[in-house]
Amino acid sequence: MGTMIDTLPDTIRPIRYGDGALYLLDQRLLPGETHENRYVDAAGVAAAIRDMVVRGAPAIGITAAFGVVLACGAAAGSGRADWRGQVEQAIAQLAASRPTAVNLFWALDRMREVLASCPSAGEAHARALAEAERMLAADIAANRRLGAAGAELIEPGRAVLTHCNTGSLATGGFGTALGVIRSAWAQGRIREVFADETRPWLQGARLTAWELLHDGIPVHLLCEGAAASLLRLGQVGWVIVGADRIAANGDTANKIGTYGLALLAREHGVRFMVAAPVSTIDFDTSEGSGIPIEMRPESEVLELAGRAIAPPGSRGWNPAFDVTPARLIDAIVTEHGVVQRPDRERLVALREGIASR
Amino acid sequence: MGTMIDTLPDTIRPIRYGDGALYLLDQRLLPGETHENRYVDAAGVAAAIRDMVVRGAPAIGITAAFGVVLACGAAAGSGRADWRGQVEQAIAQLAASRPTAVNLFWALDRMREVLASCPSAGEAHARALAEAERMLAADIAANRRLGAAGAELIEPGRAVLTHCNTGSLATGGFGTALGVIRSAWAQGRIREVFADETRPWLQGARLTAWELLHDGIPVHLLCEGAAASLLRLGQVGWVIVGADRIAANGDTANKIGTYGLALLAREHGVRFMVAAPVSTIDFDTSEGSGIPIEMRPESEVLELAGRAIAPPGSRGWNPAFDVTPARLIDAIVTEHGVVQRPDRERLVALREGIASR
Repeated sequence: MGTMIDTLPDTIRPIRYGDGALYLLDQRLLPGETHENRYVDAAGVAAAIRDMVVRGAPAIGITAAFGVVLACGAAAGSGRADWRGQVEQAIAQLAASRPTAVNLFWALDRMREVLASCPSAGEAHARALAEAERMLAADIAANRRLGAAGAELIEPGRAVLTHCNTGSLATGGFGTALGVIRSAWAQGRIREVFADETRPWLQGARLTAWELLHDGIPVHLLCEGAAASLLRLGQVGWVIVGADRIAANGDTANKIGTYGLALLAREHGVRFMVAAPVSTIDFDTSEGSGIPIEMRPESEVLELAGRAIAPPGSRGWNPAFDVTPARLIDAIVTEHGVVQRPDRERLVALREGIASR
Repeated sequence: MGTMIDTLPDTIRPIRYGDGALYLLDQRLLPGETHENRYVDAAGVAAAIRDMVVRGAPAIGITAAFGVVLACGAAAGSGRADWRGQVEQAIAQLAASRPTAVNLFWALDRMREVLASCPSAGEAHARALAEAERMLAADIAANRRLGAAGAELIEPGRAVLTHCNTGSLATGGFGTALGVIRSAWAQGRIREVFADETRPWLQGARLTAWELLHDGIPVHLLCEGAAASLLRLGQVGWVIVGADRIAANGDTANKIGTYGLALLAREHGVRFMVAAPVSTIDFDTSEGSGIPIEMRPESEVLELAGRAIAPPGSRGWNPAFDVTPARLIDAIVTEHGVVQRPDRERLVALREGIASR
């Protein structure tokens, strides 16, 4: 297993901590420029999440955890007695950065638990850092496992289609849906990778193409409107996507366009896979209708890279996510196993299986 | 009727002939710049069609007819005996400009018929000009009629969604699907207009938004990926699109993304209308699989306004059109009547009805 993993195409790490600062690869500048921004306080980290310097549900969660580390460091440095209040304020700020990805709230809850038993800001800082680093390493390991599990579902010889960016850039590293694609590609199971460009933010064109080419996996980009024609050709065996939040019944919130893609896949007999770590499953949200969907600024639709593409006076309608009903999903692939034809009972069984290990 | 028509929002004309030259509004520059290019020979007109200075099936047909006018003028000016050969060469060049829109071949066939009985290049030039001008005026009149017919299908109080640009800019004037929307809006039947931005060429954002705002009709733009979410909301009563070619059985080739939209409409109980002049129906093509689909350059997907959006080395998959099966179409609206639940028999009946008038 060790040698197999070493040969996987996996060279990108978007989140890095060192010298008391958090470094994030600025994903708004890709693919033209690879530049790391440096963050020294939680407010800056919250702004980076909101402004999409970093995006992707697992990456957002890990980034927020390091934001808490910075807040603990600041609290320790200030020497004030109310360090818990200071850190709680930072956590609230981080939680308000984006509403849909549940990993954000999951990561902040984890950090809160770790801090609860710390007697001092100094110890909080040390333990928070250890926990955030552990979370980052665990995410990469989880993606390696779910990637291998997802790859097993893919019969060799056909193409796959993915949406948005669910790769190293969207996680601690390796990726979820792109982790499955990395694993399956390394095993020779995939003939060709197609990627939606994913308007309005062009995560597919800017990020997915960049990281797949970076790791030697060729990719064909298409506009979302061409997906139905591609699926009709019969060459695509699986559509593989990530998730920002999976409700307790399997309904899955993911990048806008996913729901339509799932309907088109079903119509054309193409299978549909959601790849996500267990932390993306929100057992407190009963079904998809309970997941808050972030509305992003109209300007994202009306402009491209700061340049107007629509005439002045135009309005835009810009939900960032949509919800795919569980009935359209053939498999949810996690680091703790695959849930075929997901529903409430099967997700509970997954959770109970994890708890009993 | 006359006074009703005068109040319709209709102020844009993309094709104009004068002083022995053809003037085309350069649609590649919209919405930033409104500039007319001047063309004095058929080769220039063929290049303008290929390079999408003008686009939209009816507009391409009319433009090509004026290209023949210019070829006749050049033949008359040359004084050579083989003027028919010169004009035929120009017609072949114009026919090779784009493959999918049948109106192009229909218009060139019409011009050929007109020229067949002309004894001289001089007379050919005069009669070609008269025919092209008649074709332009007839297209606008046809759009007024089909606009009114389509509007009658729309029950007041709901929104509509359209794709690509099917307006004044895609025709001689007024538009097909946007003609229906102009008529229905003037009658107060539409609560709100949504328009797909329509990647890769952004006809929705650049052209549809521009011409609707120009004529005082507010519009909300969305990315194609958001259409499924919009239709799920239940506010859209009709999806209304144009056509580049309608096969004899009702299968309809139109801008890439149309087929997926039709599937999504059917899934959500939203009705689906194709608005097109009768010249768009190709009775010589039995079904949709016989319609040639133009593959456009990969660069259209990999760049935006000449600027790379994907990393070097990326590939693009870029079919310009797709085919919507007739079973997904609730109505084909023409200037000679509405064909509900279109199929081969009903389209033949439409043709026979026109012939018997």
